[in-house]
Amino acid sequence: MTAYPSFCVTTGPLPASRKVFLDVPGRPEMRVAAREIVLSPASGEAPLRVYDTSGPYTDPAATVDIRQGLPALRAPWRAERDDSEPVATPVLAAALAEGGAVPAFARLERPVYRARGGRVVTQLAYARAGIITPEMEYVAVRESQGRTAGRPVDDRGQPGPYPLPDVVSPEFVRAEIAAGRAVLPANINHPEAEPMIIGRNFRVKINANLGTSALGSSVAAEVDKMVWATRWGADTVMDLSTGADIARLREWIVRNCPVPLGTVPLYQAVSAVGGVIEDLSWPLYRDILIAQCEQGVDYFTIHAGVRADHLPLVERRLMGIVSRGGAIMARWCRAHGTENFLYTHFEEICAILRAYDATVSLGDGLRPGCLADANDAAQFAELETLGALARLAGTHDVQVLIEGPGHVPLHKIQENMVRQEQACGQAPFYTLGPLVTDAAPGYDHLTSAMGAALIGWQGTAMLCVVTPKEHLGLPNRDDVKTGVIAYKIAAHAADLAKGHPEARLRDDALSRARVGFRWCDQFALAFDPETAERLHAESLPPGRTASDHCSMCGPAFCSMRVSR
Amino acid sequence: MTAYPSFCVTTGPLPASRKVFLDVPGRPEMRVAAREIVLSPASGEAPLRVYDTSGPYTDPAATVDIRQGLPALRAPWRAERDDSEPVATPVLAAALAEGGAVPAFARLERPVYRARGGRVVTQLAYARAGIITPEMEYVAVRESQGRTAGRPVDDRGQPGPYPLPDVVSPEFVRAEIAAGRAVLPANINHPEAEPMIIGRNFRVKINANLGTSALGSSVAAEVDKMVWATRWGADTVMDLSTGADIARLREWIVRNCPVPLGTVPLYQAVSAVGGVIEDLSWPLYRDILIAQCEQGVDYFTIHAGVRADHLPLVERRLMGIVSRGGAIMARWCRAHGTENFLYTHFEEICAILRAYDATVSLGDGLRPGCLADANDAAQFAELETLGALARLAGTHDVQVLIEGPGHVPLHKIQENMVRQEQACGQAPFYTLGPLVTDAAPGYDHLTSAMGAALIGWQGTAMLCVVTPKEHLGLPNRDDVKTGVIAYKIAAHAADLAKGHPEARLRDDALSRARVGFRWCDQFALAFDPETAERLHAESLPPGRTASDHCSMCGPAFCSMRVSR
Repeated sequence: MTAYPSFCVTTGPLPASRKVFLDVPGRPEMRVAAREIVLSPASGEAPLRVYDTSGPYTDPAATVDIRQGLPALRAPWRAERDDSEPVATPVLAAALAEGGAVPAFARLERPVYRARGGRVVTQLAYARAGIITPEMEYVAVRESQGRTAGRPVDDRGQPGPYPLPDVVSPEFVRAEIAAGRAVLPANINHPEAEPMIIGRNFRVKINANLGTSALGSSVAAEVDKMVWATRWGADTVMDLSTGADIARLREWIVRNCPVPLGTVPLYQAVSAVGGVIEDLSWPLYRDILIAQCEQGVDYFTIHAGVRADHLPLVERRLMGIVSRGGAIMARWCRAHGTENFLYTHFEEICAILRAYDATVSLGDGLRPGCLADANDAAQFAELETLGALARLAGTHDVQVLIEGPGHVPLHKIQENMVRQEQACGQAPFYTLGPLVTDAAPGYDHLTSAMGAALIGWQGTAMLCVVTPKEHLGLPNRDDVKTGVIAYKIAAHAADLAKGHPEARLRDDALSRARVGFRWCDQFALAFDPETAERLHAESLPPGRTASDHCSMCGPAFCSMRVSR
Repeated sequence: MTAYPSFCVTTGPLPASRKVFLDVPGRPEMRVAAREIVLSPASGEAPLRVYDTSGPYTDPAATVDIRQGLPALRAPWRAERDDSEPVATPVLAAALAEGGAVPAFARLERPVYRARGGRVVTQLAYARAGIITPEMEYVAVRESQGRTAGRPVDDRGQPGPYPLPDVVSPEFVRAEIAAGRAVLPANINHPEAEPMIIGRNFRVKINANLGTSALGSSVAAEVDKMVWATRWGADTVMDLSTGADIARLREWIVRNCPVPLGTVPLYQAVSAVGGVIEDLSWPLYRDILIAQCEQGVDYFTIHAGVRADHLPLVERRLMGIVSRGGAIMARWCRAHGTENFLYTHFEEICAILRAYDATVSLGDGLRPGCLADANDAAQFAELETLGALARLAGTHDVQVLIEGPGHVPLHKIQENMVRQEQACGQAPFYTLGPLVTDAAPGYDHLTSAMGAALIGWQGTAMLCVVTPKEHLGLPNRDDVKTGVIAYKIAAHAADLAKGHPEARLRDDALSRARVGFRWCDQFALAFDPETAERLHAESLPPGRTASDHCSMCGPAFCSMRVSR
């Protein structure tokens, strides 16, 4: 008997929603998951199809058993490419063999793959070779959904320098990846993930951070943190766990994760040296990186841009270094009086990542932690280094994201986007917020969603969720949901402003539901149907459950009734 | 015995705060209220002085008795000017004499003033005559607070076409009012209000709407809605009550209100005709307007821009007319087949307002209610009319605000600001949000704060708070606070971006408190200290009440500890 009797996680469709599967031209075996919001018969409208990040958990037809993990959707494509082979003695095996409080994942014996011989397995290498992979075909259909319903003719947005296509073709996906303008994070050891693309010419994506804890809760509760974040719309999740047993715990998460998963391998490295940062070393870090590649982590934040030369620039700051990874590497550099080993070994890192198609997310270890430090010399010196490293990774056919912002006032946001494009070519920008004021702890989902909407509009490809607990403590389930919804709003606002052809369909459908006083349809179309319905119910008179006027104004003052 | 045993409202200082009074040069009897946030001795820092909208309610030295109302701060200045006289038979008397459930306010017998003879009592008339009023001196000190501490030298923001002065002089205030670029809403019958200025070259202001209800709660509860909103930072409040007894109820609110109060007189007019909009008439409206001027309402939303000619433009819309006032006037115009009486009688309206120095806020009855209707012909046709009416009001020395937005996607916001400046000279813009998506009911404080921050940066002078209940129901006390805090954040973000010299002092102080792990100071400096402290406490281990690291990361991963 196990100490973890329950393996239940959150399942079931969102209100008024059903899972549908879209066909992929010329790929009869491939099905792209989407969500349809079913409107009331009174609407006379077809269901609205929306992008769906939630995986099989919202599909009543799927059997969910986290002990088995998700189906390996991409395994046939890996086999079809025949460019990888099982690893005889995975480094991962030792990490997972460690005992502790976390039970072993059942399918622990699965084979681990890496590139075979001199083959390069990355989506970037295929894209550059002119080859369209099944993953590219999948995301083409996924990104195109809704576009056939037509773009509102009066509004093509302000899309920036790259005109958005009316329909996303597989060739468009390939070309964007080949140009380094988009990444498709898809570790060959995470075949459970549904392919997803990140780039300025696709829908703006959001990432939610998970802080798992090996102590104090069941593996199901830890897996459920990931399920919960993707249920509300997280396009990727990052596992930022620290502490013991994190490899075993992560195995449960990766095997059950329908979206790309990121980590910061440095955190596991620091745990491995018992928190004594000075004891970190390249060989130790390398083995952890390989083990995580074998496990299936899709992208890694690597703080290779924190160079010894940059550290004097930090001395002038009010807040110093607020990135955990940045602070760790700065301390290591100072202790050893030498250059950051992630920088000096960066080509070896690329050689490792390339063998699994893990994407590198170049960490902004010197991001500003307050407005006073925004856009300073330290931040932009690191950005230049990230640009150089991005070019280097490109020579290894490794896919690259660039991390950015932090705390930046509104008027300094655009400079970040402009400089990132200058320094890093067109590698996708992935930003935390930015928070536009330091003075609102408890509301930093909001202070940062303001900055996120703006930088998303300007071209940032992925926004890292900030919860109301930022600066205050670890987010709970409600905090995560609040943060994810705030960022879905920011990303959607950016998509609208960029003129994504399908973005406004949801707004227009909801507005028609308002005009028709179709309350259930308003809730169904909301990013958070449950909260919308609850707030509406709070203000109805006792015993009433619906109303044919907006409950703010009362019938005599309802503008829509008065206008009829 | 009264049916309302309690006359208590929310009093007491905010956490770690005390009321201070600033001297006014050359005016020994004048004291400008401000709030000082007292930091812990460990900080070694002086208290931070911040703008304070809360009136005597947060002053432990003040005696608060809502039956008596607030002291008439401005009465001596009115007497000093000697430009007004008591009205022999106020129209107001009849309105207040009505019985019903609301008890009469004790000081009902106070004299009502209006301009004497041919005198023009408006702040605009004085400003144009080159005269600096006590109100202008007051706001000069109020807006200058904190500026002597110096502007962060590295950041002058992006202030737009008008450079912001390092210190706000009374002459600067006068010149801004004279140019019509700012208003100082100060009805001579609301001497209890602390003078406050609204204009693009001052701090961005916020308004909170109150929906009082004459039934179901005590007058204290109704007054407390106003006290509550100003406690958290509302610079003005609008009383949007409908229904019976609203004149009597409003008397309680005006007499206890430390900030300018706005109304939409049309709502009272509709109530007076029992909701039969077709029965509205100019004489009926006129008498209500006069009674509200006599009562001391500082500004009126008047939907004079909804012209019969604009109505065909609305037919093409998805949502039609969503402004209550706009819908009412459109229906009246259609029913009578004639022009809006607020438009045809606009000069008579100005003549009334001028006699009390009531400010007109030209309502945007055709504001867009969804993204599909944003920036359309109907909206901009009305804006042109508002510009013409603003010029007309100016010829009567009446102060003017222009109301705007609604639902507008990010990329269409700037056009609103640009067109408003073109159409309306430099009259202050006062916008609802804008909401940047329609698809997030339950989160519209957030969808609109995003737009509000952006349009505030671009030059909008006052932002109308949207609560999480927008589109769903009447906000409760928590909703109002959430909305007000969201808008304080938006206004502050805009002030930072415009480079207001003092704005960043609060951010920098909070960032220093973060570096020093001074948790109490972080809470004290937050826009919402209570929520910040509560969220922090939620994630501390049982029995702990503070920590010397950010509780998100734990001690081993605390970037600030690691960096030390």
